[in-house]
Amino acid sequence: MPKRAKTLADAGEFEFIKSIRTMMPKDGGNIIRSVGDDCLVTESFENSLLLNTIDTFVEGIHFKQGYGTLTQIGQRCMAASVSDIAAMSGNPVYSLVSLSLSPNMLYNDAINIFSGLQSTAKLYGCPIVGGETTSSAGPITITVTVIGKVERDRVILRSGAITGESIYVTGYIGDAMAGLMAFERKESGFNNLKKKFLTPLALVTLSRALNGLYHITSMIDISDGLSTDLANISYESGCGAEIYEELLPLSNDFRRISKKFDIDMTSFALSSGEDFELLFTTDDDTISDKFQLMNHRITRIGTITDSSKGIRIHCKNNNVEPVLPKGYEHFKS
Amino acid sequence: MPKRAKTLADAGEFEFIKSIRTMMPKDGGNIIRSVGDDCLVTESFENSLLLNTIDTFVEGIHFKQGYGTLTQIGQRCMAASVSDIAAMSGNPVYSLVSLSLSPNMLYNDAINIFSGLQSTAKLYGCPIVGGETTSSAGPITITVTVIGKVERDRVILRSGAITGESIYVTGYIGDAMAGLMAFERKESGFNNLKKKFLTPLALVTLSRALNGLYHITSMIDISDGLSTDLANISYESGCGAEIYEELLPLSNDFRRISKKFDIDMTSFALSSGEDFELLFTTDDDTISDKFQLMNHRITRIGTITDSSKGIRIHCKNNNVEPVLPKGYEHFKS
Repeated sequence: MPKRAKTLADAGEFEFIKSIRTMMPKDGGNIIRSVGDDCLVTESFENSLLLNTIDTFVEGIHFKQGYGTLTQIGQRCMAASVSDIAAMSGNPVYSLVSLSLSPNMLYNDAINIFSGLQSTAKLYGCPIVGGETTSSAGPITITVTVIGKVERDRVILRSGAITGESIYVTGYIGDAMAGLMAFERKESGFNNLKKKFLTPLALVTLSRALNGLYHITSMIDISDGLSTDLANISYESGCGAEIYEELLPLSNDFRRISKKFDIDMTSFALSSGEDFELLFTTDDDTISDKFQLMNHRITRIGTITDSSKGIRIHCKNNNVEPVLPKGYEHFKS
Repeated sequence: MPKRAKTLADAGEFEFIKSIRTMMPKDGGNIIRSVGDDCLVTESFENSLLLNTIDTFVEGIHFKQGYGTLTQIGQRCMAASVSDIAAMSGNPVYSLVSLSLSPNMLYNDAINIFSGLQSTAKLYGCPIVGGETTSSAGPITITVTVIGKVERDRVILRSGAITGESIYVTGYIGDAMAGLMAFERKESGFNNLKKKFLTPLALVTLSRALNGLYHITSMIDISDGLSTDLANISYESGCGAEIYEELLPLSNDFRRISKKFDIDMTSFALSSGEDFELLFTTDDDTISDKFQLMNHRITRIGTITDSSKGIRIHCKNNNVEPVLPKGYEHFKS
């Protein structure tokens, strides 16, 4: 008779916690107390501002099982959370994780989710040093809190953009959601797009480098789609923006899959989140050329304007059209 | 035709966020940036240690609708989270909240949950200054992160108990779970017990006061049951403990409901969590008398021993029995 695989119910919370505790760093250095007490206790960050994020990822909303491994789901959740620290030009330092899982879940699946979260957290220098697990009758729900720091004179908010400044994006836009589409339509190939969806990067180093070399006045990560995230910068900065369709950085794979499924590339790219590329403004309009050295694409896509005209796009057909925030909105069907 | 009540799907995430944003403090003082950016950005806590908690509350596991209002559910979740800061003898400063809610949820119900979370957070001095909302097909899931601080020489860990010291608990034990039992068995009356379950207090002020007046060597909040939480102190401190059945502080209502349902008071009290009373150790065995001034019951229940004998209870019948951790364990059925 084949042995049934062990579930979380078979193991129980204490065995699971004991197991993931071995994947956490030991106390010492700046960690006064991690797991094993009521709170995480650490040294403060002297002479730095304190950054805190919280992000929840729900199965069926933010991810589905089957498109990648459970380890990759963990990796993606952590990268998405760390990306919020990158968007402030901060350094991630620690993270806490709360997992709500079904008792029927396979024990090794739960371990794999944690292992993906932790390997990515360590990659970015913010190991998971605490958290909790709860059972739930609902979907897998992962909440990540990342604690970071940033020098007072280097924090970049969304609110600093000024009329006349250039608008830039890093990398390509739309690739992650195109990757998800490739999964949903059971397309073989398009591995670069699928990889961008499954295991996005948090651009901590790039953000810090940009901030060191240029006068970056506002920044956000593209998690909700360029149209929505540019609207966020405009709203917080009290300005407008004009961007150029022909300047939008679209990858060859993105163009290829859009053609295959007869999708309007521009509107898809503007509304696609989950790339975790950076959108930022600066008074320097020559970054693109200078930055080729770092082997990371940086593209100037437009200019900050005053707020009276809102956000507009100069289309290839010479029309100028308003850009409406079309990113994902929770609860709306 | 009666108008259908507004749901989260009718309103959408942006309207909901706009509404709860009005309940949050404005930026200023030590808050550089709260909502409206990728992270919470605050001043660091100079000369203090940094405390961080994360707690998740899942409908059907941690709370049920119908026993109290949704506002009270929010209040209870926040108090439970702040209690972790109290257990370190820290001061809560800010909190972040993540809500995973069904699109079908009534809009006002969601507002009420947030309002309960926020009113309690403000009560303890740690207003909610950021967070996020996500839709979910599953149960209501509330994750709270509290950020706190504590002076380096005043932090109390679980690990400092020493053989010969006295073990104390604040308040009464078992009342909260007895209150839940009253709800489950549809008992009228027992309002004190029900109130203890619905709206427990986080003992921040009491913890700070105790810590200022006495040499407290270890502390934990009773969230998982006295037997489990005392086992946690013993494990982290590398010691044993002996407690006395006749010393356990049981309220009159607790005794009354236990008799009514023929429940073994001692084993129920030892395994009942959710009280958020404090369990602590100190070398002073006269606190109980001194502390009556503060109108808060503090009861000496036993003594820390060396680790060889584990945790034992001296029963009223003069037997000495081992105390096994019988608190709640997730995933186990």
